[in-house]
Amino acid sequence: MTIDQTLAATAVQSWKMHLERAEKLFFGLSDAELLNPIAPGRNRLVYLFGHLLVVHDAMLPILDIGARRRPELDAPFLVEADGNVPDLPTGADLRRMWTDVHAVLNAGIDGFAPADWVAKHTLVSADDFAANPLRNRLAVLLNRTGHLAGHYAQALLARRS
Amino acid sequence: MTIDQTLAATAVQSWKMHLERAEKLFFGLSDAELLNPIAPGRNRLVYLFGHLLVVHDAMLPILDIGARRRPELDAPFLVEADGNVPDLPTGADLRRMWTDVHAVLNAGIDGFAPADWVAKHTLVSADDFAANPLRNRLAVLLNRTGHLAGHYAQALLARRS
Repeated sequence: MTIDQTLAATAVQSWKMHLERAEKLFFGLSDAELLNPIAPGRNRLVYLFGHLLVVHDAMLPILDIGARRRPELDAPFLVEADGNVPDLPTGADLRRMWTDVHAVLNAGIDGFAPADWVAKHTLVSADDFAANPLRNRLAVLLNRTGHLAGHYAQALLARRS
Repeated sequence: MTIDQTLAATAVQSWKMHLERAEKLFFGLSDAELLNPIAPGRNRLVYLFGHLLVVHDAMLPILDIGARRRPELDAPFLVEADGNVPDLPTGADLRRMWTDVHAVLNAGIDGFAPADWVAKHTLVSADDFAANPLRNRLAVLLNRTGHLAGHYAQALLARRS
């Protein structure tokens, strides 16, 4: 591999490691366990699970991979705070949607060459990107990896309760 | 910038963003606030602060930047769990050591060219690295960025209490 290919592959590997770890945790929870909060009065595990799903779904258009697959999840898991929406999807529903969204997302990610990673993402204007070329697709991937790592670490607090 | 330079700079930017965010949170806490747990019965903020510091100090030899500067912090913040060591450093001590360690660490990081990032880190053998070139310095940086993001997200739970 060339240097740029190795750098891109290392970042993708980090994303997938964090993703697989979170998937293992959330997929292993029963519907009852999903209702546990990460700490007293804090978000429930089901909310973090759906929140990660919707944020990753939104990566599809941001990385120009494709259209959103689950825009209907924005309301319960992004716009509204936990507790404000009475009927959340079941664990089985979330697992099915998670698998679908990440299959499409990771297929797109796996198809990116290094030049694709340093390209503009769709939320930044051409002018802003010209002024700051670090506002690229890799920055989105790394930002979402950190977001995932954060909520995973919070979820661990509940799982170990 | 070339593609490999942009990729490396984007990863370094992500590291520094996560670092600055955590520094702002931890540096803003009083000694009394540092003794708050992130959740009932969980690690205290002072422990997370020192733990991040010691893990980042250990990056110096792993990235081949230099020798550890604070190996004495391993006992209270890495080997022992929170609560097992009675006399922890004060907030002022931790802030001073944090600033020192990260000045050296980030000076080393800023000096890396893309080829340095895909080089072997010091914890992997030459044979293992030959078999898997993704066990490189960038993988260490991304792993530690995720670690930092996780503990930062946990610390937010205490701060907002």
